[in-house]
Amino acid sequence: MALIVQKFGGTSVGDPERIKNVARRVARTKDGGDDVVVVVSAMGGETNRLISLAGQVSSDPDEREMDMLLSTGERVTIALLAMALQDMGYKARSYTGRQVGIITDSAHTKARIERITAERVLEALTEGIIPIVAGFQGIDEKSDVTTLGRGGSDTTAVALAVALKADLCDIYTDVDGVYTTDPNIVPSAKKIKKISYEEMLEMASLGAKVLQTRAVEFAMKHNVPVGVRSSFNENSGTLVTREEKDMEQVSVSGVTYDKNQARITIIGVPDKPGIAYKIFGTVANENIVIDMIIQNTGQGGLTDISFTVPGTDMDKAVKIVKEMIAGIGAKGVEVKDEVSKVSIIGVGMRSHSGVAAKMFGTLAKEGINIMMISTSEIKISCIIDSRYTELAVRALHDSFELGR
Amino acid sequence: MALIVQKFGGTSVGDPERIKNVARRVARTKDGGDDVVVVVSAMGGETNRLISLAGQVSSDPDEREMDMLLSTGERVTIALLAMALQDMGYKARSYTGRQVGIITDSAHTKARIERITAERVLEALTEGIIPIVAGFQGIDEKSDVTTLGRGGSDTTAVALAVALKADLCDIYTDVDGVYTTDPNIVPSAKKIKKISYEEMLEMASLGAKVLQTRAVEFAMKHNVPVGVRSSFNENSGTLVTREEKDMEQVSVSGVTYDKNQARITIIGVPDKPGIAYKIFGTVANENIVIDMIIQNTGQGGLTDISFTVPGTDMDKAVKIVKEMIAGIGAKGVEVKDEVSKVSIIGVGMRSHSGVAAKMFGTLAKEGINIMMISTSEIKISCIIDSRYTELAVRALHDSFELGR
Repeated sequence: MALIVQKFGGTSVGDPERIKNVARRVARTKDGGDDVVVVVSAMGGETNRLISLAGQVSSDPDEREMDMLLSTGERVTIALLAMALQDMGYKARSYTGRQVGIITDSAHTKARIERITAERVLEALTEGIIPIVAGFQGIDEKSDVTTLGRGGSDTTAVALAVALKADLCDIYTDVDGVYTTDPNIVPSAKKIKKISYEEMLEMASLGAKVLQTRAVEFAMKHNVPVGVRSSFNENSGTLVTREEKDMEQVSVSGVTYDKNQARITIIGVPDKPGIAYKIFGTVANENIVIDMIIQNTGQGGLTDISFTVPGTDMDKAVKIVKEMIAGIGAKGVEVKDEVSKVSIIGVGMRSHSGVAAKMFGTLAKEGINIMMISTSEIKISCIIDSRYTELAVRALHDSFELGR
Repeated sequence: MALIVQKFGGTSVGDPERIKNVARRVARTKDGGDDVVVVVSAMGGETNRLISLAGQVSSDPDEREMDMLLSTGERVTIALLAMALQDMGYKARSYTGRQVGIITDSAHTKARIERITAERVLEALTEGIIPIVAGFQGIDEKSDVTTLGRGGSDTTAVALAVALKADLCDIYTDVDGVYTTDPNIVPSAKKIKKISYEEMLEMASLGAKVLQTRAVEFAMKHNVPVGVRSSFNENSGTLVTREEKDMEQVSVSGVTYDKNQARITIIGVPDKPGIAYKIFGTVANENIVIDMIIQNTGQGGLTDISFTVPGTDMDKAVKIVKEMIAGIGAKGVEVKDEVSKVSIIGVGMRSHSGVAAKMFGTLAKEGINIMMISTSEIKISCIIDSRYTELAVRALHDSFELGR
C-alpha cells in the first residue's frame, strides 16, 4: 500500500461535472488499495474573476487583501470535491492551508512554505478519510492568510508529499505529460516517459509550462518522484525523478522556446572596471531578471554590451538604462523586442561531445542567425529572430532525432 | 468619540460599485470622529451560487463541507471592502471569523456563538485601522469553519458590538427601518423611530424580515442599541432599544402577517391525559415548530385538536400525524393550508385595556372569521383565511391609527 498525493489543477476542476470526474479518479486510486491525499486549485477562471473584482474596487489592491480574496478559490473546490466523494460513498474531508498547518513567510502573493505540520491530514488518513487540501495557500506567523503565487498548488502538493513521506506526487493537468517539444509546433513531438529533476527544471524555467519551477526544486531537494499526467485520459504520463544511468544515453531530451524575450544593447560603453556591475546592479535592483549578457571585445576603449530581459520588463529596463547612459559615458541604447530563446536540454550533454556544434550547424543550415548563446551543463540556449522560432524548434527536434 | 459597529447585508455589497458606496459611508463615520468596526455579508446572490454548485456535485451535501463552501462568500466581501477603503486612503484590514476569535459550537450550518475574543479587532482600532469582519462565520473548538445560518451576519454584528462594548450597532439593509406594517400592503405605513427589543422580537419572529431574531435576543440580553437603516439613503432609520416610558403610550406599535401557515386538525381524539404530549412530542422531535394549539372541549370523551405549523413543514407534519392516529385512537386528519396569521404588537398592551376586543371587532366588521387566537403580554395573533390577509392588515392598521 502506497501513499500518493494527487494534485488537480484549475482546468481539471473547472466545473461541477469535472469535479465529479476527479472524484471518480481519486476513488479508483483509493479502491486500488492506496492511500490518497488530494490537493486542488481554484476552479478554472475563478482566480481571474476574483482579480477582476479587486480591480473594480481598487487601482492597486493591497497584497494581504489579495491573499484573503484569492484564497477563497481553493476553498470552494475542496468543499465541492469532498462533497462529491461523500456522495459516492467515500469518507472525505476538506482542509484549508491553515488546517493542514502550512506555515509560510509573510511575503503576501508570493509566500514561501516554511514548514508543514499536516497533523490533521495524518489523523484523517488513520481514520480512512480522504483528505482534500487547498493548494496555493498557507498562513504566516500572525495567522494571516498567504498565497504562494500562480501555480503554487504544485508546490503545495510536493511539499505535502515531502511532509507526509509520500511514495509519489502525481500532478494532474490538461496535458498528459512532458513532451520533447511543443506538439503544437512539432506534431511528431514525443512524450518523455522519465525525466530527471535537473532537466525538468530547465524545461520549466525555459517555457514549458507544465510544472512550477519551485515545485520541481522542492521535489529534487527531497527526492520525491513527481508524475505529470492528464486528468482527462488514462495515459501513463511523465515521471520526474532522480537522474538514472540510462538517461545519459540520450544527448538531448527536449527542445524548448520562449518568445517573450527582448534584447537591449548599450552602445559605446567605456571599457572600464565596474561599469557592468553598475549597469546590471541597477537593473536587478528593479527586480528585472537579466538572462543572457554579451560584452563585445571593444575597440578604442569602447565596447557594446547586450543583454536579454523578459519582454514584459522591456519598457522598464529601457527606461532605467536610458537614465543611466549619460552617467556611465555610453553613446546610446538599441532595443530589439522580436527575439526568441530556443534551447536544447539533456543530462546526456555531459557525456556527449559535439552537441553544441550540432545545434549551431542545424540553425546555420536553416539560415538562422544566432545573436547570443548561453550554456549550462545540461542545456544550450540561443537567441534568434522571433520569426524563425518554429522553424528552429522543428529543425532541432529533427536533427536530434527526438521524434523517434 | 463613540465606537460603532456597522453591518452591511448582501444587497448593500451586491457589486463592486455598491462596495465602494459602503466604503464611502464607513469613511464618513470615521471622518466624523467615531471608531468603526464593519461586518459584512456575502455579495448578494453569491450564497445561492455556491449552494447551487454544491447541489451539482452532491444530492445531500455534508454540513461541515457546506460551511467550508459558504464561508468563502463573506471572505470575498471583506477583502474587497478593505481594498476599497485603502484605495480611498483609509487604513483598513479584513478579518475572518477565526481571526476575530468568534468561537462557536459545532452545529454546522446553524452554529451558535459561544464567545468572541476580538483581540485583533481591538489591536486594529488602537492603530487607527478600520477592521472589516466577515459576518455569518466562526470556528469551533476543532478549528473547523462553522456558519451561523441565514441572516447570521446580524448576529455577528451584535455579538461583536457586545464583545467590544460598542455604543451602537447599526444594521444597514435595503429598507430604511421598521414600519408599522408592510408598506406594500398599506401605503400609509409609518416608519417607527424607536421600538423596544421585545416588540422587535415579536415583529421579527412574526414575519417582518428586517432583523434576525437571534440578533435581537442577543442585543436585548446585553442591552446594545441596534439601528436599522438603509444603505441606499441617508434616512434616520429605526432604533431598537430597551423599553422606555413613552413607548407605553401607544397601545399597538405594528401589525404583522405571515402567510406561510398551515392548520392541521386531528378529529375525534380520545380525551385522555398524555395524548397531547404524544402528538406534539412526536411532531417536535422532527424539528417542526408548532405555533398555536387549540383543543375543543370534547363531547362523549372525544375532542378535536388543531394546531398550526409553518407551511413548508405541512407535508412532513401531516405524514407524521397520519402515522399516529390509529395508535392514539383518533378518527381522522383535516388539513387547511390556505391560512395566515395576522398579529398586532405593542408593549402598550400591558397598560391599555380593550386592545383584544378592538382587534376582534375590527376583523368582525370586515366579515373575517377568526379560526384561532393566541396572545402574549405584548401581542395578539389570529389565524384567518389567507385570502383576507391584506384586508385584515389594512383594517387593523387603520383601526389602531398607526398611519398617523
